[in-house]
Amino acid sequence: MKRIGVILAGCGSQDGSEIHEATLTLYFLDKFGAKIQCFAPKIPQWHTVDHYSGKVQEGEHRQILTEAARIARGDIKDLSQVDISSMDGLIFPGGFGVAKNLCDFAFQKENCQVNKDVEKIILSMHKSGKPQGFICIAPVLAARVLGKFHPEITIGDDPATVKILETWGAKHIISRVDEIVYDPQHKIVSTAAYMIGPTISKIALGIEKLVKKVMEA
Amino acid sequence: MKRIGVILAGCGSQDGSEIHEATLTLYFLDKFGAKIQCFAPKIPQWHTVDHYSGKVQEGEHRQILTEAARIARGDIKDLSQVDISSMDGLIFPGGFGVAKNLCDFAFQKENCQVNKDVEKIILSMHKSGKPQGFICIAPVLAARVLGKFHPEITIGDDPATVKILETWGAKHIISRVDEIVYDPQHKIVSTAAYMIGPTISKIALGIEKLVKKVMEA
Repeated sequence: MKRIGVILAGCGSQDGSEIHEATLTLYFLDKFGAKIQCFAPKIPQWHTVDHYSGKVQEGEHRQILTEAARIARGDIKDLSQVDISSMDGLIFPGGFGVAKNLCDFAFQKENCQVNKDVEKIILSMHKSGKPQGFICIAPVLAARVLGKFHPEITIGDDPATVKILETWGAKHIISRVDEIVYDPQHKIVSTAAYMIGPTISKIALGIEKLVKKVMEA
Repeated sequence: MKRIGVILAGCGSQDGSEIHEATLTLYFLDKFGAKIQCFAPKIPQWHTVDHYSGKVQEGEHRQILTEAARIARGDIKDLSQVDISSMDGLIFPGGFGVAKNLCDFAFQKENCQVNKDVEKIILSMHKSGKPQGFICIAPVLAARVLGKFHPEITIGDDPATVKILETWGAKHIISRVDEIVYDPQHKIVSTAAYMIGPTISKIALGIEKLVKKVMEA
């Protein structure tokens, strides 16, 4: 039984993990027989966004781990307690929370800094030769942390984001929503999901392939 | 193209809509070609639960519509604006929020009262002969509002809950997680999901059948 970690960044497309991408990841992992363990950092969210109005809710303070626990139904651990040896693979669903909470790409763009625990885990998994999947905007993490190894990744087709990822050393492949890009040398899998996807059943096609690849690789 | 409404009760298994059940409902609706419209009441949640610790977060006030918008990615309407004539069917995913926000079953049990807008919609859909799907704990709503018509429903196998639903007039059918119960006379479909389901891919089996039936009926 493959043991796969899922790293969450909160709960909601605008300030946390994208709920559909995270839930579909759990769905396909469970369907294909993985043993799942969710993780999230025990730190405050960058901010809270009212997903009805689209506006920032001033004065509303939420914790990433506490909110991510909504997606994990309480079965989630503090990211700082990850034990790499207990995992055969790792998946990062997308959502703006990845670019606001797990790194500051949303604000700092090419000068983006990655959360130290997240950086350490990606480097350790890579060094151990274990597969990692990055969905939607999450390939930003792979490109920033592993750029010097020139991994092949996709974030869909957004030219501004592609340019930054290439500045860091990553090789970007333009892709469709039902496709994955797999770099066998670095065991990095990516799919564009809501970076380009029109609806939930379309992004599921790429996420299903990504989950399969992370479990096989 | 079938137009199906999805009624949400917040965002999270303990104080809102169960995220996996709601997301899988949207996934299968989209996969089978439905036109989806989400709704939620624009009123405060009963309370907010920290899904990591399991404890109530005192002093944390959230709105049902605002939180449900996280699951709907912002594409959601105020429940009080529902136009029954614009819908061919309706689905209520489960989660404790159904029993705390859409009615007060979690606290009042057999004396449970249903939110007036929710009650009106269920009665109107029934009168119009349109199909309605109830997932997990949500069949409580069907039993409370339509009990006098003696609909056949399932909430799995919990004896205490079954007894209350039967007190209201509903006929309860014990079921497995991969099954649905369908009452063709009243066009009521139900599946037990996380009332009994062990994991996300298992509850998906019943939810997939429920979505199909609501779209066909």
